[in-house]
Amino acid sequence: MSKLSHYDDAGSARMVDISDKPVTARVAKAHAFVHMSPEVLAALPSNPKGDPLEVARIAAIQAAKRTSDLIPMCHPIPISKVDIDFGIEAGGIRVTSTVACSAGTGVEMEAMTAASIAALTIYDMTKALDKGIQITDIHLLFKSGGKSGDYQRDSS
Amino acid sequence: MSKLSHYDDAGSARMVDISDKPVTARVAKAHAFVHMSPEVLAALPSNPKGDPLEVARIAAIQAAKRTSDLIPMCHPIPISKVDIDFGIEAGGIRVTSTVACSAGTGVEMEAMTAASIAALTIYDMTKALDKGIQITDIHLLFKSGGKSGDYQRDSS
Amino acid sequence: MSKLSHYDDAGSARMVDISDKPVTARVAKAHAFVHMSPEVLAALPSNPKGDPLEVARIAAIQAAKRTSDLIPMCHPIPISKVDIDFGIEAGGIRVTSTVACSAGTGVEMEAMTAASIAALTIYDMTKALDKGIQITDIHLLFKSGGKSGDYQRDSS
Amino acid sequence: MSKLSHYDDAGSARMVDISDKPVTARVAKAHAFVHMSPEVLAALPSNPKGDPLEVARIAAIQAAKRTSDLIPMCHPIPISKVDIDFGIEAGGIRVTSTVACSAGTGVEMEAMTAASIAALTIYDMTKALDKGIQITDIHLLFKSGGKSGDYQRDSS
Amino acid sequence: MSKLSHYDDAGSARMVDISDKPVTARVAKAHAFVHMSPEVLAALPSNPKGDPLEVARIAAIQAAKRTSDLIPMCHPIPISKVDIDFGIEAGGIRVTSTVACSAGTGVEMEAMTAASIAALTIYDMTKALDKGIQITDIHLLFKSGGKSGDYQRDSS
Amino acid sequence: MSKLSHYDDAGSARMVDISDKPVTARVAKAHAFVHMSPEVLAALPSNPKGDPLEVARIAAIQAAKRTSDLIPMCHPIPISKVDIDFGIEAGGIRVTSTVACSAGTGVEMEAMTAASIAALTIYDMTKALDKGIQITDIHLLFKSGGKSGDYQRDSS
Repeated sequence: MSKLSHYDDAGSARMVDISDKPVTARVAKAHAFVHMSPEVLAALPSNPKGDPLEVARIAAIQAAKRTSDLIPMCHPIPISKVDIDFGIEAGGIRVTSTVACSAGTGVEMEAMTAASIAALTIYDMTKALDKGIQITDIHLLFKSGGKSGDYQRDSS
Repeated sequence: MSKLSHYDDAGSARMVDISDKPVTARVAKAHAFVHMSPEVLAALPSNPKGDPLEVARIAAIQAAKRTSDLIPMCHPIPISKVDIDFGIEAGGIRVTSTVACSAGTGVEMEAMTAASIAALTIYDMTKALDKGIQITDIHLLFKSGGKSGDYQRDSS
Repeated sequence: MSKLSHYDDAGSARMVDISDKPVTARVAKAHAFVHMSPEVLAALPSNPKGDPLEVARIAAIQAAKRTSDLIPMCHPIPISKVDIDFGIEAGGIRVTSTVACSAGTGVEMEAMTAASIAALTIYDMTKALDKGIQITDIHLLFKSGGKSGDYQRDSS
Repeated sequence: MSKLSHYDDAGSARMVDISDKPVTARVAKAHAFVHMSPEVLAALPSNPKGDPLEVARIAAIQAAKRTSDLIPMCHPIPISKVDIDFGIEAGGIRVTSTVACSAGTGVEMEAMTAASIAALTIYDMTKALDKGIQITDIHLLFKSGGKSGDYQRDSS
Repeated sequence: MSKLSHYDDAGSARMVDISDKPVTARVAKAHAFVHMSPEVLAALPSNPKGDPLEVARIAAIQAAKRTSDLIPMCHPIPISKVDIDFGIEAGGIRVTSTVACSAGTGVEMEAMTAASIAALTIYDMTKALDKGIQITDIHLLFKSGGKSGDYQRDSS
Repeated sequence: MSKLSHYDDAGSARMVDISDKPVTARVAKAHAFVHMSPEVLAALPSNPKGDPLEVARIAAIQAAKRTSDLIPMCHPIPISKVDIDFGIEAGGIRVTSTVACSAGTGVEMEAMTAASIAALTIYDMTKALDKGIQITDIHLLFKSGGKSGDYQRDSS
C-alpha cells in the first residue's frame, strides 16, 4: 500500500516537497449533492431577481482560490480555471466543479473544496425552509496530469 | 412556507439585518462522515507520531472562525467555543462538530463548515491511499438559542 | 479643526482606543458610480443567465466583512447588515451600499469599501468591452449613531 | 463587440481558463484621485512623525496581493512588483499604482484595486477632518503584455 | 499545577469554551527586541522619506487583528486598541505592543503576535544589510482584566 | 554598505521588482527557541492524546503560506515545501523551519515567519502554566539559491 505522503519518515505532518516535480497541466473535477425536499426545490426560482445558485457559484470559485489556506498540507497553486455547474434534479441539486492549473501538484483538493463550499452555500441560502437538508456524495470525479496518472471515478 | 431570508423584497441577495435581534447563547452541532476502505482505516495509526485526525481537528477549528469569509451571507460571529470529535467506525470516520457563541444569530453554518473542512482534510491526508474516498451525510444535528427554537435531527 | 484621530500625541499611526465608547446602533451609506458607454451598458442583460451585478453584489458584501483587514486603522466590527443596491442609468451604474452594526465605532469605512469593491467588480466584469470605464464619486451618503452625530451628504 | 469573457456560453459566471495562455511580462498602471479641501490638505504634514500617505502606501501594496481574494473572477497572480506614488495637488491627492507580473493574465485589476485601497485609506486617515472627502477618477492608465495589446489611456 | 486549558479531558485540542465568561475590559502588553549592528541601525534614518519602523508598525497592527487566524486555539476578539512603540537603542530596536479589548477572554496572544510581526517586518526591511540580525526576548510585559488576575513581568 | 532594497530612490517603501530575476530553486532554514521551566516541559506529554507541538507544527505551515499577507513588502511565493522540526531540550523547545520554493526571490521570510508562529503557538498552548515563557533567538540558519549567494549562520 502507498505511504501517506503528508508524513515524513518520523511520522510528523509536513507539506511535502514538490520542488522537483515537473510543472504540467492538471485538471480535476469533483462532485457534491444537496438533498432537499420538492417544496424547497420548488421555492428556488420564486425569487424575482435572486438565485441561490449564483451566490453558491461565486462562493465556490472564491473557495477554490483559498484551498491552501483551509487545508493545512495543500500547496498554494496558481489556479488557471474554475467552473461550477449545477443540475437541478428531483431530489436536490447536483454540484460539479472543474479546476485547472499548470503546476507541480494537482488541483484535486481545490475541486473538492469548491464543490463542498458550493453545497454549503446552497444549504445556507435554503436552510430557513428546511433544517433537514443534507449534503452527500462529495467525491473526486476525474483527475488528469501528474505522474500518478489519470483517474476516472467508476460510475457504475 | 417560510421565506428565503437572504433575499430582500425585490429578490436581491443581501446579508440580512440582525441589528435588532437579542444577543443570546447559541449552540449548533453538525455531522459528516468520511467513507474509506478498511485498508485505509487500518493505515491511519501506523504513523509513528503523526495523526491525520489531529491535522483535521485544527483545520476545522480554523475553518469555523472563517465561516463568514467563505459563505457569502454569513455574519461575522464572535465564536466562543469549537469542539471537533472523531469516531473511527467500520466504514470510515465520523466527524461531529460543536460550535457556541453569544450573538444575534446562530452558529449553524460555523458547525456545518467545521465538519466539512474536517472531512476534506481527512480526505486530503488519506487520498494517496485511495482516490475513491467519499464524504457523505453533512447535516445539522442540533441547534439551540434564537427565536426559531431548538432543533434536534430525527435520528430514526 | 479636529485632530487626525489615527495619530497619537507623538504623531505615530495607531488604532485608536474605542474601549470606553458606548456600544450603539450605527448605520452608514456610501456611493460609487461606474461610468460606461451605452454599448457596454446595453450588453449587460444579454447574458442568458449571468448578471455582472450579482457578482458585484456578493463581492461587495464579502468586502464589507474584510474592511479591517484592508484598511489598516479600522477596528474589527461585528457587522449586522449589508445591502447593496444598483441603479442602471444612462451613463453607467450607480452603486449604493448600506451597512449596519451595533458597536463602539461606526461602519463608514465598511460602507465605503463595499461600494468601492462593487464598482471594481463591475469594472472587472465589463472591462473586456471597454478599457475606458471609470469609477467616480465614491463618497459617504449618510451616517448615524455615535457621539459625532448624524451626517447627511448635501445633495445639492 | 467583444464578449464578456467572465461568462461561459450558457451565461454562467466562471473564472476563465488561462491554462493555454503564454506566460509573459505584464505591467499595469491605475489612477485615483482623493478630493479634499485645502484645510485638510494643509493638516497632513502637521503630524510630527506620522504620514497618512505612508499608511495608504502599505495598505495599497497589501491590497494588490489580495486582489483575487476580493474580485471574484480574478486569478491568483504571482505579483513581481508594486509601486504606489502620491502627488499632492491643489485639490487633493493623486494616486498612481504600478503593478507587474510574469503570468498568463494581466495585473489590471491588481493596479485598480491598489489605487482604490490607497484612496480609501487616505479617506480613512483624514475623514475626521472632513466627511465630504470624495474619491474620483479610478481608471486604468496603462497596460502592456498579453495578446490584447498595449493600452494607453487618452489623456486629452 | 494548572491544566493546559486548550485540551479537553480526553486530551484533544479544542478552542476552550468562553461562553460563560463575563465580558470585561482587558489590556495586554508584549515585548520583542531586534538585535542589529550599529551600522544597520545607523542606516535606518538615511532613507529620505521612508522609515522601516512605520512599515513595521502597520504590519503589527494588521497582525494583531489576524491573531485568531494565525494561532489555532485563539478566539476571534473585537480588538478596541492597538499601539506599537519603538525604542532605538545601542544594540537594536525595542518593540512594545499594547492591545485592549472588551471581551470574555484576553488579548495576550494579540499583543505577542503584534510584537513578533513588528520585529519580523523590521528584520525584512533591514536584512539586505545584515543576514545576522536576530529577534529575541518576545515575552508578555503586562496583562490586566479577567479572573486570573493581573500580571506584571518581573523586570529585575 | 548595501542599500535597503525595499526603498526606491526617493525613499518610499515599495515591493521591489523581481520581474527580471531568474526563477531558481531556493531553500531557507530559520530558528526559534521557546524557553520554559522544567515543570512546564514535564507537563507537555501528560496529555493523553493531544500534543502542543502538533498544533504548533500546523500553525507554522499555515503561516509560511501567509507570509506575504503578514509582511508588507514580501512577494507572494509558490512555496513547494515546509518542514517544521522540534527539539525538546533542558531549557525549552527548539524550533527549526525549512521552506523551499522555485521562484524569483527567496523564502527567508517564510522560514522566519513559520518559526515565529510555531513558537507563538507553543507559547499559547502552554501559557496557562507559566506566564513567564519567553521566545528568543529567532534568526536565519541557512539560505541557498539566488544571486546573493548561500548563507550559513556561524554557529560558533
